[in-house]
Amino acid sequence: MKFGEKAAQENISELLPFLLKPENIARYEDGSVLICDRRKYPFSKEFVRCQTVEEVALAIEQMVTQGGGPWMAASHAMILAAREVTGKSSERVATHLTSARDRLVSTRPTNTALARRLDLLLATAIAAIDSGEQVEGVIASWIESAITVLYENYAIRARHAASLIEDGDGILTNCFAETAFIVAVAMAVRDGKQVQVFTPETRPYFQGAKLTAPCLFELGIDIKLVTDNMPAFLMSRGAIQKYMTAADLIAVDGHVVNKIGTFQLAIAARYHDIPFYAFAWGRDDNSRTRDDIEMEYRDAADIRKAMGQPTTLDSIDACYPAFDICPPELVAGVVTVHGVLKPGELADYSGW
Amino acid sequence: MKFGEKAAQENISELLPFLLKPENIARYEDGSVLICDRRKYPFSKEFVRCQTVEEVALAIEQMVTQGGGPWMAASHAMILAAREVTGKSSERVATHLTSARDRLVSTRPTNTALARRLDLLLATAIAAIDSGEQVEGVIASWIESAITVLYENYAIRARHAASLIEDGDGILTNCFAETAFIVAVAMAVRDGKQVQVFTPETRPYFQGAKLTAPCLFELGIDIKLVTDNMPAFLMSRGAIQKYMTAADLIAVDGHVVNKIGTFQLAIAARYHDIPFYAFAWGRDDNSRTRDDIEMEYRDAADIRKAMGQPTTLDSIDACYPAFDICPPELVAGVVTVHGVLKPGELADYSGW
Repeated sequence: MKFGEKAAQENISELLPFLLKPENIARYEDGSVLICDRRKYPFSKEFVRCQTVEEVALAIEQMVTQGGGPWMAASHAMILAAREVTGKSSERVATHLTSARDRLVSTRPTNTALARRLDLLLATAIAAIDSGEQVEGVIASWIESAITVLYENYAIRARHAASLIEDGDGILTNCFAETAFIVAVAMAVRDGKQVQVFTPETRPYFQGAKLTAPCLFELGIDIKLVTDNMPAFLMSRGAIQKYMTAADLIAVDGHVVNKIGTFQLAIAARYHDIPFYAFAWGRDDNSRTRDDIEMEYRDAADIRKAMGQPTTLDSIDACYPAFDICPPELVAGVVTVHGVLKPGELADYSGW
Repeated sequence: MKFGEKAAQENISELLPFLLKPENIARYEDGSVLICDRRKYPFSKEFVRCQTVEEVALAIEQMVTQGGGPWMAASHAMILAAREVTGKSSERVATHLTSARDRLVSTRPTNTALARRLDLLLATAIAAIDSGEQVEGVIASWIESAITVLYENYAIRARHAASLIEDGDGILTNCFAETAFIVAVAMAVRDGKQVQVFTPETRPYFQGAKLTAPCLFELGIDIKLVTDNMPAFLMSRGAIQKYMTAADLIAVDGHVVNKIGTFQLAIAARYHDIPFYAFAWGRDDNSRTRDDIEMEYRDAADIRKAMGQPTTLDSIDACYPAFDICPPELVAGVVTVHGVLKPGELADYSGW
């Protein structure tokens, strides 16, 4: 399929809930970057206003946004970086933008999409410096076209995934699988299929409860919120026919990295002969096998709290691996712009 | 092995944390039943004072106690019931005790151990009425000897389980596997083995975080608290060698019913070739197969909250199956007073 072909045929704007409209993820406005505070959603729709690159980096580290949010926030932060060195020497501008890129990439070591996009943005900006263009405007244009391409990509992948969904399906997801997944379910319903989605709450940050469930609910999708320990039971009762999640990273050999818990549910799905599909931007060519994947551990103190309340004594030790890895044998298909590929087919495709 | 034999050889009193000493679970005192409020532990050590059978029943329904707590609270409630009809006709006393038994059993439809024990207590009390004994005292004596037998049983099963634990083992549990499990780990450590326990927090009530972790911590055991979606990842990293939980009910054919999530982790354990052991009182002869097991669903509103805080919008639908069922093929052994039995051997034993 030609890139963008389906997107031209299919209008997804009405299938986007508040949270997933690009201007509500992160935007540049009057010298600031505004980032929708996903920690407060769905109870309020507030934006964090950042006036420096460091403020954006801290906001990303403090989980103000997540999933597809960090790269959008970080890209807009590069406009702030460019403004800080307006009129300075080419070398000074390049150095400043590079150090801004480094700081922003350091916020999420596992998120290679963030690094890849910022590298593209930085290369474009540095080329602009050399040709004497206004760097701030070049960065803003780059972001605008990147967002257009992104939403075309969402629409294409959503259509591929919607085609997998059958009338009457119960669909399990995990964490917040973002736009391609939400739109895929909405497309299936618009196509006349009856669908029910089971959303595990996703501890410790509750993205399933706070983000996935309200987004689907806003679109009128039939949903059931569950805790993270319930899906296998629902599978055993025949309530689930498909398991679909995002992927933070897919290695060339088909290993899928995603939010902690994805692997556990993939094992349960396999036990019940339920296919697992991961939505991917593409493969990560820097990760050929699982051994190349750097796993991110976060602050164990977060495990001793739920919604800010302590669940146990402070003196009790905890551990917090933020992601896990699904081996290709557990993955029925990877939803890409090229279609739904077997993990073993990923190495054959180029042009992500 | 002769019943109680090991218990006589092995002193477990120093291996009991605060929460598991019988007088701290539920006791009769001055016309009231005092039940340790496990909802407030470990942050405070408070007791709920109940002056009527109905108050005890409500306390059990409101999750003041759980696991091995309900039968102890309910048994002591039968002393209250007997006091309410002191001096009344034999028929009146029998009717009153029977309706108290019915109310108390109704608090936990899945907990057959509760029903079985109250039936034994009721039969003893009714025999006492007929022979003119002081019913209140007979019930109190019955409870005292039941507790003695119970702790002998814990000690025997803990020894069987401690023998399964090898030096250097990482042990995964789920929810709050109670005395036999806690004592088994403590025995293994007393025997000189190095052991680390991973305790999933167990949503929605956090019994793993609130009960299991503090009990093990109090005994100086090396523990790591995790969320319910992390165990499969820890297994993939080689951190876990055994999976051990309680069982609320074991069917004659070896199906194990336990707190929601037990099944999901049993599947993950099987995938990683990690043996799963369930601690059992015995088999439930009223449940021959999984089809005989009545599953308990609880208030879905509990899924929309964590530690009392809302995690999502009130309008979002949820579902709350409280237990799940592990098929015998996932169970390496059932820890009983007769030893560690294969699920298929359960039908051969009598004299639980």
